[in-house]
Amino acid sequence: MPAAELIEIWRGGLREGVHRGHAVIHDGRGIVEAWGDPSAIIFPRSSCKIIQALPLVESGAADAAGLGAEQLALSCASHSGAALHVGKVRSWLEGMGLSETDLRCGCHMPWNKDENRLLTCGDHAPSQLHNNCSGKHAGFLSWVRHEKAGPEYVELDHPLQQAIRSVTAEVTGEEPAGVGIDGCSAPNFAGSITGLARAMAAFAQPKEDTRGQAMSRLVQAMCTYPELVADEGRACTELMRAMGGRVAVKTGAEAVFIAIIPDRKLGVAVKIEDGGTRASEAAITALLVHLGVLDKAHPVVGKLLTGPMVNWRSIEVGGLRLASGFPV
Amino acid sequence: MPAAELIEIWRGGLREGVHRGHAVIHDGRGIVEAWGDPSAIIFPRSSCKIIQALPLVESGAADAAGLGAEQLALSCASHSGAALHVGKVRSWLEGMGLSETDLRCGCHMPWNKDENRLLTCGDHAPSQLHNNCSGKHAGFLSWVRHEKAGPEYVELDHPLQQAIRSVTAEVTGEEPAGVGIDGCSAPNFAGSITGLARAMAAFAQPKEDTRGQAMSRLVQAMCTYPELVADEGRACTELMRAMGGRVAVKTGAEAVFIAIIPDRKLGVAVKIEDGGTRASEAAITALLVHLGVLDKAHPVVGKLLTGPMVNWRSIEVGGLRLASGFPV
Repeated sequence: MPAAELIEIWRGGLREGVHRGHAVIHDGRGIVEAWGDPSAIIFPRSSCKIIQALPLVESGAADAAGLGAEQLALSCASHSGAALHVGKVRSWLEGMGLSETDLRCGCHMPWNKDENRLLTCGDHAPSQLHNNCSGKHAGFLSWVRHEKAGPEYVELDHPLQQAIRSVTAEVTGEEPAGVGIDGCSAPNFAGSITGLARAMAAFAQPKEDTRGQAMSRLVQAMCTYPELVADEGRACTELMRAMGGRVAVKTGAEAVFIAIIPDRKLGVAVKIEDGGTRASEAAITALLVHLGVLDKAHPVVGKLLTGPMVNWRSIEVGGLRLASGFPV
Repeated sequence: MPAAELIEIWRGGLREGVHRGHAVIHDGRGIVEAWGDPSAIIFPRSSCKIIQALPLVESGAADAAGLGAEQLALSCASHSGAALHVGKVRSWLEGMGLSETDLRCGCHMPWNKDENRLLTCGDHAPSQLHNNCSGKHAGFLSWVRHEKAGPEYVELDHPLQQAIRSVTAEVTGEEPAGVGIDGCSAPNFAGSITGLARAMAAFAQPKEDTRGQAMSRLVQAMCTYPELVADEGRACTELMRAMGGRVAVKTGAEAVFIAIIPDRKLGVAVKIEDGGTRASEAAITALLVHLGVLDKAHPVVGKLLTGPMVNWRSIEVGGLRLASGFPV
């Protein structure tokens, strides 16, 4: 099946553009609703950080290190490198007797405006702590410490990545279709969008075993600290706040978005084939409204989906629209 | 006809994404080659600034004001708001006894890193001179001055916009299919991608009449001052430099790109339906190589199309590829 038209761009009463993609809502037993091709193979990118964090909790490493919900939220985060995020990851590493140089995520300028300005105007280079994945990598290092594994933890044959490969296969219900290297140098396992939605449904209806308890703790951590998962003003943070901490959502590069909805025992996965983040944000927003867990009158819905696009003189020039048939 | 797959995103040996769109190569008499739907209606956005600048030259306004090739290049530009651009537009306005407040393009932070840093770190707000369209608007004001027209020159019923509407219909060979408001508040006339390519073919083989002379001067201005049309490091500037000033190219918002190739008497137009600029830049690069006017070994081809994507630790993670059938 081809990708479906999901989000349109309108201007002057004409359709200026369109984003196509795939979306699946899964209840753990099967597909509840789907658009596009539910068998499409995608890289989940950062949308699967909650899966990559499972070994950290399941292994007992998180408890052994005394990690709290803040650290668990950061281990699932693509944060903006704000002072808040950088400070907490730094303390976490210091608590292990480690430092920024033990990370393997690389450096990039923080997305957070204040921190970016501080570095830019002070003529400072960013550190690996500013990398949006530094919390995930700190979690990786906690696992490494607990398991007495080697320091090159992003190598594909490192026991941590093999553990992540195994847990990915188990929660998605399928063997990885391939492996790529992510922006942060960690392996990223490809799979079907249905497998990703199935995994998120598993997080939405955790069992009472060790894995289920780990899933619950991670979902709860994201919902409790939405500002640690992204940043003020960003989609993940604002959507989780708008839903009162009852739904966990997470974006991934190249326009992936997942949602975990415990109240409905549902998992959701969205992939826009062109990588346009405005469309993945709009599509997940539409699906959350569709599923009745996000109030369509909430300002974040206007910001990400229904609100007008305005130009540099605040003149309304157009906006996003749902394509016919999406979600209904 | 549907949009065609033009540019793919690859990672870990798998196709991670795809950009679809339309492309037309026109020789003034008809379509030479096309991909996707040549009848697709698009907004040309800033790719048509050279059309919007025609009244300025044709009317005699440019000569009356003593405008040189630098100003003509700026009138066709989406510049980065570097000190170079801001300074030249300011002088241009001052020469008319006007100032930044006479512009109607609105303010946005400059894309040029040095100027952006200067404003950010000095806690200064950007002015309308920083708007990427300020050169186009200065050209508009030169026309207004010459024609003794009113100051609200971006209103659709202003004689300038009606003159642009007429010239657009003439060079594209079709009545506008609609009108939208652009980021800079100027009207932007929708039309088929074939009409846009036809217009660019007209610029590539100008007649000897007043319009043809105006076309030649504008193409020559862009080719002579590529750094005024965009900025150092940006696609338009680098592509024009790479082709030794023999081809004019121009990007537009939402992933439009045009090329004017006098040596081949050809016009080219590209539109990526999802608005992804990386794909419109890659697609125009592919077409310029395909047409034999850009050396595929030139570094800009590696940068925009064939080069590897590397991550924050400089590890190669994937790259762009041409979709099957594009261009051959």
